[in-house]
Amino acid sequence: MAAWSSQIGAEIFARRLLDQPVVLFRNEDGEVLAFEDKCPHRFAPLRFGKRTSDGIECGYHGLRFDRRGVCVGNPGGQTPPNTRVRTYPVVQRHQMIWIWMGDPRRADSAAIPDFSVIPEVPTGACNLGNYLHVRANYLLEIDNLMDLSHVNFLHNGTLGNDSMRGHRVRATARPGLVRADLFMPNTIAQFGPFAGRRCDQWNNMIWMAPTSMLLEVGATAPGGPVSQRIEDLAVHIVTPETSRTTHYFYGSGGEYSDSEAWIADQIREAQTRAFVQEDNPMIEAIDEQMQGADFWSLRPTLLGNDVGSVRVRRQLEALIAQEQSVSQTRRRDSDIHLSGAEPPAR
Amino acid sequence: MAAWSSQIGAEIFARRLLDQPVVLFRNEDGEVLAFEDKCPHRFAPLRFGKRTSDGIECGYHGLRFDRRGVCVGNPGGQTPPNTRVRTYPVVQRHQMIWIWMGDPRRADSAAIPDFSVIPEVPTGACNLGNYLHVRANYLLEIDNLMDLSHVNFLHNGTLGNDSMRGHRVRATARPGLVRADLFMPNTIAQFGPFAGRRCDQWNNMIWMAPTSMLLEVGATAPGGPVSQRIEDLAVHIVTPETSRTTHYFYGSGGEYSDSEAWIADQIREAQTRAFVQEDNPMIEAIDEQMQGADFWSLRPTLLGNDVGSVRVRRQLEALIAQEQSVSQTRRRDSDIHLSGAEPPAR
Amino acid sequence: MAAWSSQIGAEIFARRLLDQPVVLFRNEDGEVLAFEDKCPHRFAPLRFGKRTSDGIECGYHGLRFDRRGVCVGNPGGQTPPNTRVRTYPVVQRHQMIWIWMGDPRRADSAAIPDFSVIPEVPTGACNLGNYLHVRANYLLEIDNLMDLSHVNFLHNGTLGNDSMRGHRVRATARPGLVRADLFMPNTIAQFGPFAGRRCDQWNNMIWMAPTSMLLEVGATAPGGPVSQRIEDLAVHIVTPETSRTTHYFYGSGGEYSDSEAWIADQIREAQTRAFVQEDNPMIEAIDEQMQGADFWSLRPTLLGNDVGSVRVRRQLEALIAQEQSVSQTRRRDSDIHLSGAEPPAR
Repeated sequence: MAAWSSQIGAEIFARRLLDQPVVLFRNEDGEVLAFEDKCPHRFAPLRFGKRTSDGIECGYHGLRFDRRGVCVGNPGGQTPPNTRVRTYPVVQRHQMIWIWMGDPRRADSAAIPDFSVIPEVPTGACNLGNYLHVRANYLLEIDNLMDLSHVNFLHNGTLGNDSMRGHRVRATARPGLVRADLFMPNTIAQFGPFAGRRCDQWNNMIWMAPTSMLLEVGATAPGGPVSQRIEDLAVHIVTPETSRTTHYFYGSGGEYSDSEAWIADQIREAQTRAFVQEDNPMIEAIDEQMQGADFWSLRPTLLGNDVGSVRVRRQLEALIAQEQSVSQTRRRDSDIHLSGAEPPAR
Repeated sequence: MAAWSSQIGAEIFARRLLDQPVVLFRNEDGEVLAFEDKCPHRFAPLRFGKRTSDGIECGYHGLRFDRRGVCVGNPGGQTPPNTRVRTYPVVQRHQMIWIWMGDPRRADSAAIPDFSVIPEVPTGACNLGNYLHVRANYLLEIDNLMDLSHVNFLHNGTLGNDSMRGHRVRATARPGLVRADLFMPNTIAQFGPFAGRRCDQWNNMIWMAPTSMLLEVGATAPGGPVSQRIEDLAVHIVTPETSRTTHYFYGSGGEYSDSEAWIADQIREAQTRAFVQEDNPMIEAIDEQMQGADFWSLRPTLLGNDVGSVRVRRQLEALIAQEQSVSQTRRRDSDIHLSGAEPPAR
Repeated sequence: MAAWSSQIGAEIFARRLLDQPVVLFRNEDGEVLAFEDKCPHRFAPLRFGKRTSDGIECGYHGLRFDRRGVCVGNPGGQTPPNTRVRTYPVVQRHQMIWIWMGDPRRADSAAIPDFSVIPEVPTGACNLGNYLHVRANYLLEIDNLMDLSHVNFLHNGTLGNDSMRGHRVRATARPGLVRADLFMPNTIAQFGPFAGRRCDQWNNMIWMAPTSMLLEVGATAPGGPVSQRIEDLAVHIVTPETSRTTHYFYGSGGEYSDSEAWIADQIREAQTRAFVQEDNPMIEAIDEQMQGADFWSLRPTLLGNDVGSVRVRRQLEALIAQEQSVSQTRRRDSDIHLSGAEPPAR
């Protein structure tokens, strides 16, 4: 996820993603375009330029690039041949902008995680569009979210409490998806309709590869029927900015009429307060302690409740290894076919 | 020295010492405990946790550790076996907290420098408890203190003056102790009972291994008898935070009745002003100039008055070499006896 | 260029030049002296010291150095033999202080760029003495100045405009000098006497090795005679502070009577606004994007208008290679003649 769709308009929006500088904006037809934020001429950030009808113009010496990134104009002389700025495939879906930072030929919109619980176009007040910048590796954020037993310690008195302690995370997994269920029967709710009263509660986190999560949160009368309301599905998506900083997008499902818009605001405020005041200091301090070291090399003590986060880490490690093996193969291929149809290297 | 004893109470106190994150606090019996500030599970800082009756609980997922650092509780499942957080031997003495950061089996409270001029329990106003954070290697602070001829240049008009220039530092040494005496006969005192008048003055610094110093400062009528009052003994202790930052603890001896408490305050203010406004900018700028290089590799010009500081540097180099040789031997031993009684490695 | 001559007086002025810390000040005769800002004893910055009648005294322990940098006094004992602080040859010319940071035996005041358009002593109001600190490699500043076609994009609406686009930079060069002429016939002036009207305009930049530039700017009626007024010569001089930061000195020629002093102020303000608000953010962002990499290793797309900046880069590369080859030869020589008349190495 690169951004909330509401953030991207005619103005150029710049953000570092996977350690690459990127600009995003809509062309005159409202389509979202994404370019590397670096002119191939003098490496000027294109964010200092301006959009053209269907491309971008550098703000330093006026080079113009079309939507494919091809240089199509140089006001100070001949248009340089075979000159391009990198572009990225982009899809708008679920009120989010999804970007593919890898080999464009392998972009596959079917791989976008399923957030179909969110309508394509908002029709009422909702709790979406929230963002935090986190000074930590993205995996520490996933670790945090895949073991919600931490809620009853780190968020003691805000989102959780003593009565909710001692329950176990149960995980199930298949390729590309890990569920980490935390069911807490006969415990006191900290907020919501059962606030202050005994109920059966759950915090079930569903990870979808590579870095999206959907949280089912809810409560029912002790022993009562368990069902999930769309308003109680929380969205957590993390995108690496660099190896030690992360874009964190969050919100929750459901739409509210004007008279109930305060509910969306209340959930937003509770999430934001907990993330800013409680999770972020912890996660950033852990990143600081790790000083960029590999997690396993530090020989962490593993607990039963790490089952969800460890499964996610193992799946991501396999996906990364697989991608690197593919791109090495591809690179060998292009070494052999240097005179082939590859786009000209910069 | 880790802290002043007055700083450590029931609240968790966190400080980096010798580049290791440490938490200190008193248990319910008032004993000071020290733990590495890092949970072995997910590397959460324990400073975000809370003390238990005789140990500490991590604030992230609730792991509990006893006073020996052994994990004795996991609310979310089985207590992990052989899991511990590092602890450090600690002694409270001379109103200070002394910590041993090395091999716990080699901790020796007899090695604590002798500050018996300071009472164990304060009974009146005194000038102790002062602290500065310095952005420089600790040896630059020791260099500064072991050659007090600088007082008459760097502190010209505050602690020293022109009349006090030109005298020589005389040093004597034995293992673990270096005296650097600076006697300035028939010079004008800058402060104290002889302020503005001719007297015989001295600034004698006594270094005690590894990083403690006691300063005898005083004045007498020209040619008069020399004796040292306890109020005129200044304490200077430096502890490395990192290789380029230092904890600097300072103060002076003597206790004062309520009506004379202003004297303690006056000394504190004079020290602090001189250290903050005059020494610190110089020492930090030197550290900046050296950019972490080894002192000797920069081939400093040595002067006669460096005699004290060079002797300290040489003793410290020998102590460090000796310690490293011991720890290498120990490491070889433990390689051989892997199945032995070593505490489980993390 | 180390500084504007107006900046250097009896007070010690400290500045890093070519990554070396330097102090500059005038002796009692008004001559400018330059020393390395580092005492050979304990590496104290000499900027914390004070000037003597014809030299400098360290503020830490009082070592005194004469104008040649030789240690001539140690108040705390014997003057150390063969001890010196590095000095730099300095010349005041064109209201500027020029410093030679290389081998003193190769200093040659004939190599100072010719800014004889500037009087040696100001007699009226003028637009000189301006300075900016830039967080970028100095070559990026030269690149910027040697291709002024950027004026009509980056400074669109302030110094340039749409009508001025599309003209080509023509370059001529000889050793040590590159001209990059940009003639823009029948275009609308953005400022000056033709502001808002059609005229023939030019922005011709003359680079003088190694890092000085003189800009001829002007306008005439369409097809009218071209001549250059001294008031319309702008001065741009860049000196590396470090590899990624630069001292930028700028101004323009001409002197003004009291009643016209506002003109000098107006030019100063226009320059400063454009440099601070438009050039600096671009140049610093490019430096950030390049992350210290060699320019050519990033394989920039070259355009016709890069002709001036590329010629300067090629001349500088040759000059640097030549200097390094000379200094290697010299170093070999001094290896052989270790017992020779070399000043004692520190």
